[in-house]
Amino acid sequence: MTGRHEVLVAGAGLSGSLAAIYLSRQGHTVRVVERRTDPRLSTAEGRSINLGLSQRGIQALREVGLLDELWPKTTPMRGRMVHTADGQSFHPYGTEDHQILHSILRDDLNSALVDRAESYGVRFDFGHRVVALDRTLPVLTVTDPAGESHELKADLVIGADGAFSAVRAQLMRGERAEFHQEFMDWGYKEITIPADDRTRLEALHLWPGRTGLVVAHPNHDGTLTATVFLPFDGPGSFAELTTPERVKAHCDTEFADLPGLVPDLVAQFLSHPTGSLVTVRTAPWQHDGKVVLIGDAAHAVYPFYGQGMNAAFEDCSVLARCLGDGDLPGGLREFEARRRAHTDVLAELSKQNFLELRDGMRSPLFLARRKADLLLHRLFPNRWTPLYTMVAHTTTPYGDALARARRQDRALVAGLSTVAVTVAAAAMTALVAARSRRQVR
Amino acid sequence: MTGRHEVLVAGAGLSGSLAAIYLSRQGHTVRVVERRTDPRLSTAEGRSINLGLSQRGIQALREVGLLDELWPKTTPMRGRMVHTADGQSFHPYGTEDHQILHSILRDDLNSALVDRAESYGVRFDFGHRVVALDRTLPVLTVTDPAGESHELKADLVIGADGAFSAVRAQLMRGERAEFHQEFMDWGYKEITIPADDRTRLEALHLWPGRTGLVVAHPNHDGTLTATVFLPFDGPGSFAELTTPERVKAHCDTEFADLPGLVPDLVAQFLSHPTGSLVTVRTAPWQHDGKVVLIGDAAHAVYPFYGQGMNAAFEDCSVLARCLGDGDLPGGLREFEARRRAHTDVLAELSKQNFLELRDGMRSPLFLARRKADLLLHRLFPNRWTPLYTMVAHTTTPYGDALARARRQDRALVAGLSTVAVTVAAAAMTALVAARSRRQVR
Repeated sequence: MTGRHEVLVAGAGLSGSLAAIYLSRQGHTVRVVERRTDPRLSTAEGRSINLGLSQRGIQALREVGLLDELWPKTTPMRGRMVHTADGQSFHPYGTEDHQILHSILRDDLNSALVDRAESYGVRFDFGHRVVALDRTLPVLTVTDPAGESHELKADLVIGADGAFSAVRAQLMRGERAEFHQEFMDWGYKEITIPADDRTRLEALHLWPGRTGLVVAHPNHDGTLTATVFLPFDGPGSFAELTTPERVKAHCDTEFADLPGLVPDLVAQFLSHPTGSLVTVRTAPWQHDGKVVLIGDAAHAVYPFYGQGMNAAFEDCSVLARCLGDGDLPGGLREFEARRRAHTDVLAELSKQNFLELRDGMRSPLFLARRKADLLLHRLFPNRWTPLYTMVAHTTTPYGDALARARRQDRALVAGLSTVAVTVAAAAMTALVAARSRRQVR
Repeated sequence: MTGRHEVLVAGAGLSGSLAAIYLSRQGHTVRVVERRTDPRLSTAEGRSINLGLSQRGIQALREVGLLDELWPKTTPMRGRMVHTADGQSFHPYGTEDHQILHSILRDDLNSALVDRAESYGVRFDFGHRVVALDRTLPVLTVTDPAGESHELKADLVIGADGAFSAVRAQLMRGERAEFHQEFMDWGYKEITIPADDRTRLEALHLWPGRTGLVVAHPNHDGTLTATVFLPFDGPGSFAELTTPERVKAHCDTEFADLPGLVPDLVAQFLSHPTGSLVTVRTAPWQHDGKVVLIGDAAHAVYPFYGQGMNAAFEDCSVLARCLGDGDLPGGLREFEARRRAHTDVLAELSKQNFLELRDGMRSPLFLARRKADLLLHRLFPNRWTPLYTMVAHTTTPYGDALARARRQDRALVAGLSTVAVTVAAAAMTALVAARSRRQVR
C-alpha cells in the first residue's frame, strides 16, 4: 500500500457512485460532485428508466456486498418474448437456471449506491457542475447551485460524468487524444405498458417492426417500461409521426399486439421526449496517475446488447483491483490496458445487436442458428458457449468472448466440412463398389 | 440569383482567404476574422512552411485568376528523389510534362490570397478569436485583440478555422454530430537544408528510414524545407533523441546523405518544436443554410498524399459553384453531398501513403509495381491511369479516383489470369498433341 488517496469523482450516476463505494472500502477518502439533483429526491431526466443487470453487473454488486439488498427489487427476465402478427414466441436466454437477466429501476439502483457510499463516509455534492480541470495537479473547478466557483484539489480525479463528459473534454485539451463520436440515425421514446396478463411472463418483450423496434423491461409492479426505437427521418420516422392518426396507423401496422396493451399509446408517444443514441470511443483514458475516465465517459455504447451499465460496473471492479496497491500512475495505466480493447469490442457488438433484435428475431434462419447455438452449448458445455451467453452470463472479457466465438464458428465450419467430405467420400465409395459389382455381373 | 449575402469567414488561412475571393467575386459581401496575426507581417507559427500545389489547387487558383501571379513563386517537383545508403534514385511523378507538383511557401501563397481578397473589398480582422456561435441566426461572437467582445451578424458563417475549428465545436453542440479525431503516433520537426548541388534536381526529396522518414520540398532559393517524421515514443523516437549524440547517431544510421547536407542538423533538430499530425472527420458540415465548414475544419488529413491544401482549395471551388444561384440552404446541402464522401476517401489514402513513402520507396516490389503502373498508363492512356496520377494530376473526385483504380486492378488481375490460363491451355494442348503423336508413332 503506497498510500491512501484523496479521490474526487465527477458524476454520481451508476458508475461514479459504485466507484466511490469500491474506493472508500479500500480506505481512500472519496468525494463526489454531480451536476444533477440527488437521485433519491427526483427521477433522472432523459435517461432510460429501467435496466437489465447481467453477470458482470451482478458480480460487481456482489463484490461490494450490495447484491442481497438489491435482489428483492429486481425482476427476472428468462428470455425474449417476441410479439409479431403471428402471435408470441419465447426464446430463453440460456440453458441453465442462472442464465437470466434482472430488470431493475435505475432510480432504485442509483439511490442504493449513493446510500451505501454515504454509509462509508463518501461526501456527495449535488447540483455541482464541472467547469474546468487542471489535469497536472489535479484540480477540478466546479460551480455550486448558487453559481459560486470552487477549486477542488485531489490526488485522483475520476471522470464518471457520462457520454458527454466534461472531464473527458478537459483531459483531451491539447493532447494527442483519439476521439470518436457517432449518433445512430434512430432515436427512442419511453412508453409505459400497464400490467396485463398477456405480458405477465418474466421476459424481455420485443416487438420487431420493419420500421421500428420496441423493447420492454418488466417492472416489479407488473407494468413494463417500453422503449420505442424509430428512425429520426424518412418513412415511419419520428419526423413523420407527428399526428395521432399517423402514430396509430404506424403502431397498428408495425407493433402487433402493442397498441392493444397500451390504451394511451398515442398520447404517450406524442407527449414523451425523443432521445438520441450515441457511441463514444476515446483514448487515452487516463493522465499520469491524476485523472481517469470510467463508464460512459470512457466508452458510451448503443443499448442493444444491454451491457452499458454492466460494462460500467465492471470498470469499477477492474479499477479498484488495479489501484489495490495504491500506485496511481501504474494502476491507471494498467486499468486502461486491461479494459479499453474490450469496451471497443463491446461498442461494435452493441451496434450489431440492433440488427439482431430488429431483423433476427423475425428471421427463421437466425432463430434456427440461435437454437443450434444453445443446443451445442447443452451438448458440449465446456467446448461451445454462444457469444451472447459469454457476454451476458459470464465475466469473460468482451474481446476474449468475441475471439472464442469466432474460434468456435471456424471449428464448426471445419467440422461440418469434414462431415460433408466424409459423407461424400462414403457415397462415392458405395457408388464405385456398386458399379464394379455391376461390371462383375 | 436569389440574393447577395453577408458572409462571415472564420479563418484567414488558405481556405478562408480563397473562399473570400470566390464569394466576393460572386457579389457577396465578405468579412474575415482570424485569430492569428496578418500572414503578410509575420511567419505562421507551428505550421508547415512550404506546400506542394497539385492539379486541384492549380485549377482553383486559375479559376480566380491568381495562377499567373503565383507561378513565378513556385518551384517544380518532377518526381521523387529517393536518398538511401545505396545512393539516389529518381522516380518521375508522371509520364507527361504537366504531371508535376509545384512547391510554394505557405506565406507567399497566403499573403497573395489575402491581398487579392482585399482588392475585392473583403475586410480582414486579424487577432480576433471566435468564442461563440449562434448557428440559428447566425451570429458569431469574437473577441478583438483588446479583449473586447463583438457579435457579428451574417447570412452565412464559413468555418475555415482549421483542424481544431472553434466554429465546428459550436456547430456540433447539442447536435447528433459525428466526429472522429485521431493523432498519428509519429510527429514531425522542420529542418532547413542549405542550397547544394546534390539536391539541385527539381524533385521532392525523400529519405526513407527504418525508424523515421524525411520529406523535403525545394524552395526558390535552392534551399529545401525538410520535415523529419519520427515516432513520439519507443526506439529512435522524439522521446529518445534528446541529446546531440543520439540525434547524430540516429540520423547517420537512418537518413543516408542527409547529415552531410545539413551541417547544423543536430542543432536544428534539438531547437525546433515537434508538431503532431491529426486526422479529423465530421458530419454534418453545415447547418440550415447558415453555417458551413471547409478545409481542415471539415476534413483534416495526414500530409502524406500532399493533398490537404489542394482539397481545401477544391472545397472553395465546389462551394462557390454550389452557391452560384444564391440559395444558401440548398447550396450548402449540395456542397456537403458533393464533397464529404470524397474527402473521407482522401483521409484514408493519406494514411496509407505514409507506408508508401516510408516502406514503399525502398521496396523493389513496390517500385516495380509503380513502374508497371506508369508503363500501362503510357501504353493505354485512356484506359489506365495510376491512382496517384488521378489524385495529384487530375480533378477527378477522390472517391471516383479510388473506385477507378480498383476497377483497373480487377481488370488487370482478370487479364493476367486470362493470359495465364491461355498459356496453360496452349501448353496442355501442345503436350497432349505431343503425347498422341508419340502414341501414334
